[in-house]
Amino acid sequence: MQCNSERIGDWIEKFASFTDPKQQGFTRFSYTEEDVVARRYLIQEMKKLNLEVWMDHVGNIFGRRAGRGKNQKPIVVGSHLDTVQSGGKYDGIAGVITGLEVVRVLNELQIQLDAPLEVIAYAEEEGGRFGSAFIGSKWLAGEIQLEELDKYRDGEGNTIAAECLKLDALNGEVKRCERRDISPQATFELHIEQGPVLESKGNILGVVDTITGSSAYQVVIKGEANHAGTIPMDMRKDAFVAVSEISLALNRLAKEQPIHTVGTIGFIEMKPNAYNIIPGEVEFSMDIRSLDQTCMEQVTIQMKDLIKRVAEDGGLEFTIRTKHNQPVVSLSESLVSALSASAEKRNYTYITMGSGAGHDTLVMARMAPSAMVFVPSKAGRSHCPEEFTQPDEIARGSDLILDAILQIQSY
Amino acid sequence: MQCNSERIGDWIEKFASFTDPKQQGFTRFSYTEEDVVARRYLIQEMKKLNLEVWMDHVGNIFGRRAGRGKNQKPIVVGSHLDTVQSGGKYDGIAGVITGLEVVRVLNELQIQLDAPLEVIAYAEEEGGRFGSAFIGSKWLAGEIQLEELDKYRDGEGNTIAAECLKLDALNGEVKRCERRDISPQATFELHIEQGPVLESKGNILGVVDTITGSSAYQVVIKGEANHAGTIPMDMRKDAFVAVSEISLALNRLAKEQPIHTVGTIGFIEMKPNAYNIIPGEVEFSMDIRSLDQTCMEQVTIQMKDLIKRVAEDGGLEFTIRTKHNQPVVSLSESLVSALSASAEKRNYTYITMGSGAGHDTLVMARMAPSAMVFVPSKAGRSHCPEEFTQPDEIARGSDLILDAILQIQSY
Repeated sequence: MQCNSERIGDWIEKFASFTDPKQQGFTRFSYTEEDVVARRYLIQEMKKLNLEVWMDHVGNIFGRRAGRGKNQKPIVVGSHLDTVQSGGKYDGIAGVITGLEVVRVLNELQIQLDAPLEVIAYAEEEGGRFGSAFIGSKWLAGEIQLEELDKYRDGEGNTIAAECLKLDALNGEVKRCERRDISPQATFELHIEQGPVLESKGNILGVVDTITGSSAYQVVIKGEANHAGTIPMDMRKDAFVAVSEISLALNRLAKEQPIHTVGTIGFIEMKPNAYNIIPGEVEFSMDIRSLDQTCMEQVTIQMKDLIKRVAEDGGLEFTIRTKHNQPVVSLSESLVSALSASAEKRNYTYITMGSGAGHDTLVMARMAPSAMVFVPSKAGRSHCPEEFTQPDEIARGSDLILDAILQIQSY
Repeated sequence: MQCNSERIGDWIEKFASFTDPKQQGFTRFSYTEEDVVARRYLIQEMKKLNLEVWMDHVGNIFGRRAGRGKNQKPIVVGSHLDTVQSGGKYDGIAGVITGLEVVRVLNELQIQLDAPLEVIAYAEEEGGRFGSAFIGSKWLAGEIQLEELDKYRDGEGNTIAAECLKLDALNGEVKRCERRDISPQATFELHIEQGPVLESKGNILGVVDTITGSSAYQVVIKGEANHAGTIPMDMRKDAFVAVSEISLALNRLAKEQPIHTVGTIGFIEMKPNAYNIIPGEVEFSMDIRSLDQTCMEQVTIQMKDLIKRVAEDGGLEFTIRTKHNQPVVSLSESLVSALSASAEKRNYTYITMGSGAGHDTLVMARMAPSAMVFVPSKAGRSHCPEEFTQPDEIARGSDLILDAILQIQSY
């Protein structure tokens, strides 16, 4: 029993054709023309697999394979349909295709499960268009209410509320519902790693047991802008020298943690930002993520202390504003065991690992036991046209989910 | 014999009124309407002092007080007429007023010198309008040729060549010449310090014996932009972490030099400059200045080595491009002695110091023995509307130049 890499590769290429032709690489923003065409194709493919298809208010698409048992909670397999701007062919859609392929294998082998199986294509995960991520899965989990859809706007001022009405074009082709109450018994998601670890270990698989905690802060350091020639070093209030010290401390602290932790300063804005003027003010981002809640909190506390001390020592002012702070999520031990058991049985080399990025599973894990499978990303690249994963790596990852579904059915 | 702070204060306020009303603070860009009005006033004031007035092609204004001797080379006192955008009331014009005040004292006391005395208002020193500094003094020194005036353009594309023809409006009021060949025997310039040192020592005077060497480099570090969550710390090529290390090294090295040396990173441009992406490329400025040529060279060599090493250690690429590199200028020992002797005789507290900024004297020192006097800048501020110096501090500084002129006359 094996997922088929050729079929997976064909689906990857087919979905890749639903892209905004005006953008580099692959761009499928939610509720656009190319998104509607992709949905139409997905609905048809689901129907070909004899799935019963719904689409909810915000555009989550559900393909349901009936279960034998009565009142059994469904098992969910899926990922998201949208891409970032100028993204790749794999991020998101690979996990939707896993759902389709798992159903196709079960259909071909005429395996009937006790539980219903729902393949879900989550809507609007990336946040690329409306600036807020996980809209589809949060809607499904009941974490977003109807009136909130007015809140998120794209660059041209269109709200999600207005834009998702464009999906009504598909009303004749799919059953519509406002929100489905599916209460899954388990959810699975296959996703590209978006990092270099699996490739560096020889293109192996990753069974994801944790989703990183993630926090981001906006820090502003205020010193004194002044002439770069006339002010002696010991009379300066150079905001950028302070930021340099903070940057190296963040780098060192993240590296020192016993469990995978990362710290990044990705954004800098200097004032006045001139060759011959000492920086008077620097705004910067501080992004701290960890697979361990204690490590994340330790780095955060120590960085806040350090910023305070560096500022005080330099006679500088500072502010720290939390942009978001999301704790570490531990995924289901039993599902992780089931996925690992499959890999061992099949002799697929794998590691148990954490996910450094958030995913729809982050939200779904609040509703049900959940787990993920990672497949290698070539050169660790993602969110760019160069994104690449071999179809047979997706097939091997899908095999783990297929096996795990069959295993939890026998609980 | 004393320069008069009240007259100096009146002149400061009068010149401050010749400003672009559309700008904050004080803005007198060369060849603008307000510049022409200021020149008309200056020409009148020079004539009231019985000076013979010329204006050359680029707008340097010369007020000549005849000497008793035949074929004596002139002594020059002056500074520049233009300001930066939204600058202050003192930078430049204070030193022109010193020239006027020295003449007024000599006239009142009916002191005739052997040598002619020329008060010069240099044109276009700041480089604020055309992006190149010292145009007036370089023209006078023969370091700029006529055809080069087509090269420098302001933000709207106007060349110096075209704009300086606007000075022809003053042709009936002043003698014009293309370029004067004055071969001075000595030049003096009073200028605000533009730094905090003189104020911090109790608003004393500075006799300037050196003008800082100044070099600037554009450095680009290329790493690899990537997901801030999914890439472990030891697999990153974070260009900003490298810049942080370079920044602290520059700070430390500048502080370690035995003779006044400063190092500044004033400009940073990050790519892609996003909260959740590891910086893939950082362009930054590296400004190194010193009062000692060896210190400047040492810091430069060590920084270039360090950038190479940091880049190599991190698997990064780098380029370093020299924007300018101007060596340290030692001013005239005998003029510095004459100014110092005056301060001692008058019991004016002073220090001998270097200038951290460039000035017209930097150029004039290539033509003749030269020296400068610095007066305190309140809070070290300059190039801003808050720029402030007490008129009596300018008067005391002018006294030193008055005495030095009388002293070198008796050589």
